[in-house]
Amino acid sequence: MHVLIIGAAGMVGVKLTARLIADGSIADRAIHLLTLVDIVTPAPPVDAPFKVTTQAVDLSAAGAAEAVVASRPDIIFHLAAVVSGEAEADFDKGYRINLDGTRFLFEAIRRAYDSHPPRVVFTSSIAVFGAPLPEAIGDEFCSTPLTSYGAQKAMCELLLADYTRRGFMDGVGIRLPTLCVRPGKPNKAASGFFSSIIREPLAGHDAVLPVDESVRHWHASPRAAVGFLVHAAALDGARLGARRTVTMPGVSATVDEQIAALGKVAGDRVAGRIRREPNATIRAIVDGWPRNFRPERALALGFKAERDFEEIIRIHIEDELNGRWVS
Amino acid sequence: MHVLIIGAAGMVGVKLTARLIADGSIADRAIHLLTLVDIVTPAPPVDAPFKVTTQAVDLSAAGAAEAVVASRPDIIFHLAAVVSGEAEADFDKGYRINLDGTRFLFEAIRRAYDSHPPRVVFTSSIAVFGAPLPEAIGDEFCSTPLTSYGAQKAMCELLLADYTRRGFMDGVGIRLPTLCVRPGKPNKAASGFFSSIIREPLAGHDAVLPVDESVRHWHASPRAAVGFLVHAAALDGARLGARRTVTMPGVSATVDEQIAALGKVAGDRVAGRIRREPNATIRAIVDGWPRNFRPERALALGFKAERDFEEIIRIHIEDELNGRWVS
Repeated sequence: MHVLIIGAAGMVGVKLTARLIADGSIADRAIHLLTLVDIVTPAPPVDAPFKVTTQAVDLSAAGAAEAVVASRPDIIFHLAAVVSGEAEADFDKGYRINLDGTRFLFEAIRRAYDSHPPRVVFTSSIAVFGAPLPEAIGDEFCSTPLTSYGAQKAMCELLLADYTRRGFMDGVGIRLPTLCVRPGKPNKAASGFFSSIIREPLAGHDAVLPVDESVRHWHASPRAAVGFLVHAAALDGARLGARRTVTMPGVSATVDEQIAALGKVAGDRVAGRIRREPNATIRAIVDGWPRNFRPERALALGFKAERDFEEIIRIHIEDELNGRWVS
Repeated sequence: MHVLIIGAAGMVGVKLTARLIADGSIADRAIHLLTLVDIVTPAPPVDAPFKVTTQAVDLSAAGAAEAVVASRPDIIFHLAAVVSGEAEADFDKGYRINLDGTRFLFEAIRRAYDSHPPRVVFTSSIAVFGAPLPEAIGDEFCSTPLTSYGAQKAMCELLLADYTRRGFMDGVGIRLPTLCVRPGKPNKAASGFFSSIIREPLAGHDAVLPVDESVRHWHASPRAAVGFLVHAAALDGARLGARRTVTMPGVSATVDEQIAALGKVAGDRVAGRIRREPNATIRAIVDGWPRNFRPERALALGFKAERDFEEIIRIHIEDELNGRWVS
């Protein structure tokens, strides 16, 4: 089986690649070729039990999408996107990459396959939802995004469903929770503190908390996200019906609960490295975000997230810190 | 004030033009220029109390949208669309006209106005909803269209909200009910019978009913649709918040109730001109359609539809038949 990952150089793409190399297959179908593409050439993985090719591609460039799908991969993971902050700062770039790039890809797929259209797994986001929101968002709640990124993701969900309904591809969209704990350096995303208040104290550094401890949000680990992707790749499409995008499960936790979990897993000294510096701008942004979901369809379809925030922290320690932290 | 109607040659466009000519103004602001455009040159109306210009324009052609908005109209009604059946039969044309044409228009508006962006009134449709549906659809129900037309309308709603949020225009979207009684000849649209079972008997002709009398659907008269458009043009945008598209009010009626209303208004002999010819294909299509709504936002915003189906029939007799029918 030939698997293509678009957006393979990103955090999730790298972890998905590692998972496929470890598994060697998806749903008992052996992988014989893995193609990794991104706007920059992805680093070629070592020790893969199958052939891996890497390529730098700008999906929004003329002819690029056609070239990428010309060899008709069996499964296509489409993870590539300009992130929320950048899509907001550069309106044209956001629409060009996130909407047009995705549409070019779907069009190229429509034209490349005579029969047996590929499974296309598309990463959408809870950013398709915008305030006013119920305390827990159900599977039939409307998409009213408050960012251009969210609008672009919601439009791609509609394309995915329509291209699938017409038989041009076999799409599954998954709306990812905020991924936590995100590895790497603190960044300027408004959501960055959800990860940095865990990651930085475990690394022996101070972290800044810009909102009240009462703020509640929806999380899943990067490992869970990779699990969602692999599960979506193997899912029987008939079980989805016409609604091809599913809100993923996650852990709804307050910042207070996040900090308590950190103390329980790593000790009070680690949890004491969080400094309160209220920031009204970040608070206002976060106030418009989802706090909790009732992801009943996803659970019925077998998608699995962590049980609680403690498990999310333990996964970070296992996957990123080799089991050790600065106590 | 300069008003532009895109899609002015269609049934709703012609009626909106007549209404603006009768009123001479929108919300007490006098109209001094009305520009009518469509894919074919709209017929110039007579007796207008202001200047009227007409023009044939294909919005999806390069530079067309820019030319249409270059004179910076104050209010733009965007009614132009390839209808549901055609968008389903010709996938590329549907996306080109309904999605790209609308996006070109919004982009042209974004670039043409330095300040005071125009009010843009966009006609969406209840086709953004697809089964499984609740008995009455609320204002926060998800858009999961089952036609390419519905997908295109839902995508344009997202664009409208995002372009408005960014300050590029001042958009209001209205989701129209099925318009009934549609004047003119019977057509091949699956929804055509809802109108023809009223229109044809009143004209002395037999009509065919392809579904059970128990089928329930959501209707408004063409006159009500024009009322929605004019109300939307004058609405205070602040009252809408970030959710710029509103499901319009209407009359939820079973076919049985439609026929009873026809008998009451025009007599049993007229109502007796309906022939039952069940058609499984049409029944299956109609089964996926909305039956009823709870349009609470629209009612709170002052949008008004008919009280019952009898009123819808009386309006048809007044507006299309000069008060007379074949008894």
